[in-house]
Amino acid sequence: MKGNSYYEMRRDSVREIMRENHLNGVLLTSLENISYLCGFTGSDGAFILTSDGCYFLCDSRYWTQADQEVKGCQIVHYKKKLDGISSLLLELDVKKIGFESTSLTFSLYQSLLGKLTNQAELCPLEGEIRNLRAAKDEAEMILIRKAIDLASQAFLHITERLEEGAVEKDVALEMEFFMKRTGVQGLGFDVIIASGKRSALPHGRASEKRIEKGDFILIDFGSDFRGYHSDQTRTLICGNPSPEQQKIYQIVKEAHDRALDRVCSGIPIREVDQAAREYIQDQGYGDYFGHGTGHGIGLAVHEDPVVNSENEDLLREGMVFTIEPGIYIPDWGGVRIEDMVRVTPHGAEVLTYLPTELRVV
Amino acid sequence: MKGNSYYEMRRDSVREIMRENHLNGVLLTSLENISYLCGFTGSDGAFILTSDGCYFLCDSRYWTQADQEVKGCQIVHYKKKLDGISSLLLELDVKKIGFESTSLTFSLYQSLLGKLTNQAELCPLEGEIRNLRAAKDEAEMILIRKAIDLASQAFLHITERLEEGAVEKDVALEMEFFMKRTGVQGLGFDVIIASGKRSALPHGRASEKRIEKGDFILIDFGSDFRGYHSDQTRTLICGNPSPEQQKIYQIVKEAHDRALDRVCSGIPIREVDQAAREYIQDQGYGDYFGHGTGHGIGLAVHEDPVVNSENEDLLREGMVFTIEPGIYIPDWGGVRIEDMVRVTPHGAEVLTYLPTELRVV
Repeated sequence: MKGNSYYEMRRDSVREIMRENHLNGVLLTSLENISYLCGFTGSDGAFILTSDGCYFLCDSRYWTQADQEVKGCQIVHYKKKLDGISSLLLELDVKKIGFESTSLTFSLYQSLLGKLTNQAELCPLEGEIRNLRAAKDEAEMILIRKAIDLASQAFLHITERLEEGAVEKDVALEMEFFMKRTGVQGLGFDVIIASGKRSALPHGRASEKRIEKGDFILIDFGSDFRGYHSDQTRTLICGNPSPEQQKIYQIVKEAHDRALDRVCSGIPIREVDQAAREYIQDQGYGDYFGHGTGHGIGLAVHEDPVVNSENEDLLREGMVFTIEPGIYIPDWGGVRIEDMVRVTPHGAEVLTYLPTELRVV
Repeated sequence: MKGNSYYEMRRDSVREIMRENHLNGVLLTSLENISYLCGFTGSDGAFILTSDGCYFLCDSRYWTQADQEVKGCQIVHYKKKLDGISSLLLELDVKKIGFESTSLTFSLYQSLLGKLTNQAELCPLEGEIRNLRAAKDEAEMILIRKAIDLASQAFLHITERLEEGAVEKDVALEMEFFMKRTGVQGLGFDVIIASGKRSALPHGRASEKRIEKGDFILIDFGSDFRGYHSDQTRTLICGNPSPEQQKIYQIVKEAHDRALDRVCSGIPIREVDQAAREYIQDQGYGDYFGHGTGHGIGLAVHEDPVVNSENEDLLREGMVFTIEPGIYIPDWGGVRIEDMVRVTPHGAEVLTYLPTELRVV
């Protein structure tokens, strides 16, 4: 299938949402959804879809980039975003326009409403379009696999060199530089290197701390390859693990494996969380696992589906998300193991290829 | 003055805005404004100010960070942001609440309104608080100067090594790595290296192109030091410049110097733009200078004041912004010279210390 066809398929899915909601058009302002539907990767613009038309709007900073990137849309230039959007909506005379209520600001909503002199109605859409993105198509999977591969190579590069006395920040920078040299466009988030007691901070930034013998070393790292992200975590140990460290690590690993085994198209998403959480609770560490088991990932680092105890939605084939249980004991240390997985008809395809055994450095 | 006092002074200025707008409280959701008023540098949270209280709200991911960073506020924990904000507003029984209409999404606005069962009123503020940030205090200037210095050192490092045949992307990465090794937290934006014809793209990303003899090399680079940004541009030449290249460079330099000379507390901001623009127009290149002359910079790379032909606001002492005229001739090349300046009682203090003469590499 040609690259363009994917965008057309995605736009057809949005038109399906339009029909279900009795809309004549949709205005998109979130950059991820815009990129998803037309390929634009710049940092400002708007997108309007009607039953038979498709328009990308931008100012002069992005004319050249839009010409190169945007697929199958008419490109409309504006000087001021609000004027560009309202003029086109008036010209097309769209009467019921869906908009992303979690992206459009109150100010832009009010101003736009004031400009639509044709009595058009602005209808809030909550997560309908974002939700489409949860299941990935083949074009997306190629980029996600590449993002995972580049980040994994950086991890392997660093673990071969990691040793007692290394400064967390230096290790984080070396991973970042390796990824950027090998072709990632960005990281999605700063590399987390949290060692010793600091590994108990679920989002501990890399610090000036040196890695010492006996430290857990939690490494949470991601990459951005042409707009698509990876997010993976491994926890290493400096020197031989104590029996308690071994025990905690094995509990997290088992919880991780159980969540993985539970993945199956059609089940409620919360059951994946439950599989990991119940095991950790049964082992007596439930209070030390304070976050959800995972999150969807793609054009955003965090997107649908949320994998937590409350999500009643069903797993769908093609969904890509993380499985990342953890145990964090304050003033002692923490362990997290995070893989990326894809839902197939036969269960989870584990996209992460790094081993999950406790690695000693 | 102690660090805390700056936050208190800034909060007092917001209380002044509250009084002018007859508000009993203000809800802030934009991260830059939150950071400005309490010091929090994480990526999610909310802030509520009343006439006698001050509250920072966040979820469990940021408890530790908030304890370390937030100055002079009560820290409130929430599980869901909407519930945290609405509970506190109800508890404080604030009746007229200002909010940032250009930051709050339509969805959060609607949900919040539904939760405020005490008939409280949500009153949109447009740019009032953002506008406060245009004039920098001493605590901010220390960080801005440091951001400029670290980026400038990276520029000097790279220009000493720059030569014919270098790949734009490699040069950009080397600048980035140098900055990160020496202590910047981020870049604010990707380093732009645009050579030859590509220098005519005002926002050309660094590409696989090699630098060739006769190329202009436009280098636009920034840094983020503890939340504060720098943004500077220099245009170099590979080998000796042609007479036309020399001419264009000198026009941009003269336009830049004229804008600089025009800076003076109390004049309309558009006059700074005018000084650069009229000169470029008089030389016959007005059509090739398509963007504004500058922008404020601080916690955001682009913030108030906008330095363009339409801004009737007056320059105030302490404002920090860029002066960056340029000439971009399609299929030929472009030149931009960008300095950061601060408004003093005696005119512009030029914060950028890199020379503006055309440098041959």
